[in-house]
Amino acid sequence: MAAAGHNKYAAGYGQVKHHEWRTAENSASHLLPRLQAMVKETPQLKLLDVGAGPGTISASFAKYMPDGQVTATDISDEILGRAKEHADSVGVKNIQFQKANVYELPFPDSSFDIVHVHQVLCHLDAPPDAIREIVRVTKPRGVVALRESEMKMWCIFPELPPLLQFHEIAAKTLAANGGQDKGGRQLVSWTMKAGVAREDITASFGTWCYSTPDDRLAWAGSMMERLKTGQMRGKAIELGIATEQEIDDMVNAWDEWSKTDDAILGIMNGEVLVDKK
Amino acid sequence: MAAAGHNKYAAGYGQVKHHEWRTAENSASHLLPRLQAMVKETPQLKLLDVGAGPGTISASFAKYMPDGQVTATDISDEILGRAKEHADSVGVKNIQFQKANVYELPFPDSSFDIVHVHQVLCHLDAPPDAIREIVRVTKPRGVVALRESEMKMWCIFPELPPLLQFHEIAAKTLAANGGQDKGGRQLVSWTMKAGVAREDITASFGTWCYSTPDDRLAWAGSMMERLKTGQMRGKAIELGIATEQEIDDMVNAWDEWSKTDDAILGIMNGEVLVDKK
Repeated sequence: MAAAGHNKYAAGYGQVKHHEWRTAENSASHLLPRLQAMVKETPQLKLLDVGAGPGTISASFAKYMPDGQVTATDISDEILGRAKEHADSVGVKNIQFQKANVYELPFPDSSFDIVHVHQVLCHLDAPPDAIREIVRVTKPRGVVALRESEMKMWCIFPELPPLLQFHEIAAKTLAANGGQDKGGRQLVSWTMKAGVAREDITASFGTWCYSTPDDRLAWAGSMMERLKTGQMRGKAIELGIATEQEIDDMVNAWDEWSKTDDAILGIMNGEVLVDKK
Repeated sequence: MAAAGHNKYAAGYGQVKHHEWRTAENSASHLLPRLQAMVKETPQLKLLDVGAGPGTISASFAKYMPDGQVTATDISDEILGRAKEHADSVGVKNIQFQKANVYELPFPDSSFDIVHVHQVLCHLDAPPDAIREIVRVTKPRGVVALRESEMKMWCIFPELPPLLQFHEIAAKTLAANGGQDKGGRQLVSWTMKAGVAREDITASFGTWCYSTPDDRLAWAGSMMERLKTGQMRGKAIELGIATEQEIDDMVNAWDEWSKTDDAILGIMNGEVLVDKK
């Protein structure tokens, strides 16, 4: 299927930085037990991580399958370079990197035992087309694991007004870039539209929790970066949904939040496992 | 501390019915690994389940600690009777039932290895007072497990308008009954106000997911019951936040939702484990 006409997703630096916090343990717990069971049966498992970004989740997967092989793709050569650096830095060898468009994956049918896709579909304008392509490259009796955030499902405390405004403009800039702000809840629906039967789909919701001092700092630091220098500042001002002053207030509010002992942020993500027949 | 002056929480029938869907596995996964580890060290573990309602979670705990003893409390004798019936029906023997007010638990200091509290604090007007009392009856080196829902954190698909209205009136009737609609995100804060140090608190978020045909039916059936005969109908009309016609529309919408193949509902809950020093 043609990629022409689809929207383009290019992450800003701040976004990538927070993405580096992600691991298989904190971001793919819906897949991990299945992955571990499959590795026992098939040590030379082949796993494809589509839209892997900085590759921290891909590298965590690789550790669970020492005799297997991970292929990590991204639309951006620059991001793939960073993913390779990360894998090198943590000593992961059984991983390879390949530039790819999710709508036209450069692999034959039935190439992988597991295909993992995390926070990619919400940036696309035609998720079911991408899922059909993802299922195509999955082997029969293989597993597809999808996970997408729900922009509405942020649960923050304390509710500092600039942070509530931040949440609003994050959803609006995602939508303005052609993305989906309610991806998590639509995963079952998108997957069925891609031709998968309901009984082959297992749905769940997973969460991220930022509550310890370290996790609060990692999150707030990344959001402050996005506000100061990332794509988000420019886009919010271009769209007229925040002023320079309001954006500065948001930076200060994230700083205050990160230093507040009882502060917390929870984010809910939709999850789907597909058992390919 | 005196219970006088606090609000009273009395569940309607429909509410109890859905509560029976709850198990340790789907509602206390933040505690289960810790419980299992503690049972290995102390087989004769004593667990208190505060505000146990129909006791399905309490009975699931009892199965994980065959040589231990579960005590389940509730403010209502009638609900406790139902909890006892449930325990009998599933053959659980190592459980006892006791009427108790969460603000004045009828147990000496340091009585239990684990104290579990699920969806109770959100119905109270002074959660930190209740947590202080819960911590009091927990042994040093014991664990307190709290879990409270976040009324704002509902993620439903498809977004049928009567279901969105249902969600609004559910939050408003909770608040009108003196409850807290943002309990999950305040658990860390409430626990610190009860005198627990931040470093003794582990926070997380858990979810409920209603997506399979059986789970959709269980949820929708219970909500339809609440709307038809439960406390919710009367309260909503009394508060002037829904008309009879709108309530009938909600009943029909839940019915339609339950029959929709790609329908889903996710609900996020705040969770806290306290390691008592």
